[in-house]
Amino acid sequence: MPDQVKYLLDESSIPTNWYNIQADLPSPMPPILHPGTGQPAGPEDLAAIFPDALIAQEVTTERDIEIPQPVREMYKAWRPAPLFRARRLEKELQTPAKIYYKYEGVSPAGSHKPNTALPQAWYNKEAGVKKLTTETGAGQWGSSLALACAMIGDIECKVFMVKCSAQQKPYRKAFMESFGATCTPSPSDETDSGRAILAGDPKCPGSLGIAISEAVEMAAKDPNTKYALGSVLSHVLLHQTVIGQECIKQLELAGDDPDVIVGCTGGGSNFAGLAFPFLGDQLRGGKKRRFVAVEPAACPSLTRGKYAYDFGDTAHLTPLVKMHTLGSTFVPPAIHTGGLRYHGMAPLVSHVVELGLCDPIGVHQLEAFAAGIRFAKAEGILPAPEANHAVAGAFREAERCKREGKSEVILFNLCGHGHFDMSAYQAYNAGELQDYEYPEKEIAMALAGLPPMGN
Amino acid sequence: MPDQVKYLLDESSIPTNWYNIQADLPSPMPPILHPGTGQPAGPEDLAAIFPDALIAQEVTTERDIEIPQPVREMYKAWRPAPLFRARRLEKELQTPAKIYYKYEGVSPAGSHKPNTALPQAWYNKEAGVKKLTTETGAGQWGSSLALACAMIGDIECKVFMVKCSAQQKPYRKAFMESFGATCTPSPSDETDSGRAILAGDPKCPGSLGIAISEAVEMAAKDPNTKYALGSVLSHVLLHQTVIGQECIKQLELAGDDPDVIVGCTGGGSNFAGLAFPFLGDQLRGGKKRRFVAVEPAACPSLTRGKYAYDFGDTAHLTPLVKMHTLGSTFVPPAIHTGGLRYHGMAPLVSHVVELGLCDPIGVHQLEAFAAGIRFAKAEGILPAPEANHAVAGAFREAERCKREGKSEVILFNLCGHGHFDMSAYQAYNAGELQDYEYPEKEIAMALAGLPPMGN
Repeated sequence: MPDQVKYLLDESSIPTNWYNIQADLPSPMPPILHPGTGQPAGPEDLAAIFPDALIAQEVTTERDIEIPQPVREMYKAWRPAPLFRARRLEKELQTPAKIYYKYEGVSPAGSHKPNTALPQAWYNKEAGVKKLTTETGAGQWGSSLALACAMIGDIECKVFMVKCSAQQKPYRKAFMESFGATCTPSPSDETDSGRAILAGDPKCPGSLGIAISEAVEMAAKDPNTKYALGSVLSHVLLHQTVIGQECIKQLELAGDDPDVIVGCTGGGSNFAGLAFPFLGDQLRGGKKRRFVAVEPAACPSLTRGKYAYDFGDTAHLTPLVKMHTLGSTFVPPAIHTGGLRYHGMAPLVSHVVELGLCDPIGVHQLEAFAAGIRFAKAEGILPAPEANHAVAGAFREAERCKREGKSEVILFNLCGHGHFDMSAYQAYNAGELQDYEYPEKEIAMALAGLPPMGN
Repeated sequence: MPDQVKYLLDESSIPTNWYNIQADLPSPMPPILHPGTGQPAGPEDLAAIFPDALIAQEVTTERDIEIPQPVREMYKAWRPAPLFRARRLEKELQTPAKIYYKYEGVSPAGSHKPNTALPQAWYNKEAGVKKLTTETGAGQWGSSLALACAMIGDIECKVFMVKCSAQQKPYRKAFMESFGATCTPSPSDETDSGRAILAGDPKCPGSLGIAISEAVEMAAKDPNTKYALGSVLSHVLLHQTVIGQECIKQLELAGDDPDVIVGCTGGGSNFAGLAFPFLGDQLRGGKKRRFVAVEPAACPSLTRGKYAYDFGDTAHLTPLVKMHTLGSTFVPPAIHTGGLRYHGMAPLVSHVVELGLCDPIGVHQLEAFAAGIRFAKAEGILPAPEANHAVAGAFREAERCKREGKSEVILFNLCGHGHFDMSAYQAYNAGELQDYEYPEKEIAMALAGLPPMGN
């Protein structure tokens, strides 16, 4: 049996700064647009829903953003996260590739999401905010924000959870409530946006786009309430760069340098968190690497969407961002991977793809679950369904290395464990999961409704 | 906000030996008895269900038992586990006590159980065993054995899960099945023991005692099948001593020495794993400490049971061990703490209690859940219901320190996370959990049926 190899860092190696790839991009990001005027949005356009510090992080091109000391302290609850060399998996796959994975499931919420939940809650508390609203799909993000608000204290947390995910995962609600948050299935009758959707389709399974509308609406209507987003925006991706920065140090310990870097993408944050510190090094003249973004084939914004200005939400309450989108009114099929059911993509990730710096691929859920089960039996960790997509992407690369006889170094992000996702595994083990056809007609219809501004 | 303080060790600090407290006890353990003859059982009496190496570990009085290198390698998948100083909790409780907790929830099964699952599976594989049977209550143990068998490979795993726990936690079954194990609610119709119970009470909620009978029966009937137990026996407690040994090193780093050591007890293994290395030090002339074993008040073997020879299972297939017991036919109330629903106690823990070296207390589940929620909000980790009992015990000690104005050092074992136990939190948050009266009549009846041998 191969030896177990894990690379640990001590707490002094928790990064002191977040890395901002906007400093190193060969061309700047397209600006955020005001949906009314079609002109670039200013900080004042975002001030109703975000505190100033996070708005500044959204647009800055400064390379290193200092992590506030209290946030760094809270990171110590589980960081640095371990990096594993997957020797048992390599043997199982009979690949000449070396496979490494960063394991973010050691956080108290079981995923990478607290990396940004904690700073977001902290900056809001500093700004005097009393309540945060948010959306959640699989529940990883809502759980993490609930946890962050409890740890920081004196800040209320309200989560709109995509209805089909809430039904698949009732225990996520119990988790959030145990930390004192309230969790409401979305679409709900608590907001105008939710009521409008329910009027049109009382059985609507919900989507991240709809849940965002509800959370944004509630925040915009109350001066003491702000909104927190779990992915997509640049400041969220920024906070996740602790992942990749730690990996750089850990791979130095391992004496290896990755050739291929793989992550799953829904909104883009865990992929960016792993990839951007490596990509930044490449952009500054370092080693050229292959970056693989793995998305669900049933919700394929990067591989089949249009690169265009679009709303982040269904009710069109957000500013317009340029991203790969399937149309903000598209409701993805109810795949068991709620965290990846989003119509758009992080504008930063989209920009990087447009620059030819990243290769997106689509994977169907049966391939993803099969890979996750095979990974679990070899390595002992049962991944979240989202992470299964990254595992499947890494498997494809490992198979390629086998075909080509190459001993490349593959690094992927195991962004969370599957302990909350057992209903999905239950269905998969019982043979009840299916792959969904590419929803061509629905996406074409949603794309026909793209706003004229910027496009 | 107080700083986060976590003590990490590098992998070279994973213990090289398990610590056997039998070497240091002031009087020897009462022997295991053959149920037919009432005479001390020899290795041959256990050979039908355990491999020789584990039988030897069960009875040896050697102090240090070397951990096989392949097992130590697999421990690296998550060990050394972190030790936390609970500064936020201390502030929340306004106690002058210093509180530390060892967090075993970082294992891939979410609890301390893989510490013994891996060596048990490994020794069985070495002995040529093809299949392991076992019981599980909350599911922590069954999951861990399923995981261990998958990691070690080529060894089948069959789990009998206590029926009421299987109903409370359907996702545990999916977890075990994802690792290739089979999981059957107990009592089942697959064994004589199960069928006999069902004939008497078709709605029987099951118990660990019954599930053990089924697993032992199945192992005893097939020469290629052995049985693995998740707690109670001395070799299981032995394997768990990696916990306390790591804590000794971590507290040296912290510059503290615990005055009070707290663990929850069902079968006794996580408590013993933490406590015995410290108790051994005390027995060899080191510092005198207070050891607190916290059990559920509704299943109070240590605090209300009888110290007597009894069977480990309901169908009386096991040898007789001297332990605190509520009677092997006692079916505990269906508290949401399946891992602690056992009629007996580890003979080693019972012996230590009889020697006056440990103070057992009983805690009702509402107190335990309230403590767990308060802990989670302060420290960010939601404990397993079993671990909530240890948290509640630590809270009581912290309150005592407050009343007495003492700055004692409290160490407790946070033996697992609650991510699989959200149905229990769901019920607790909804106000649907109740405390159970001490089941006096049922226990008296069960105790009236104690075997004559040895008593």
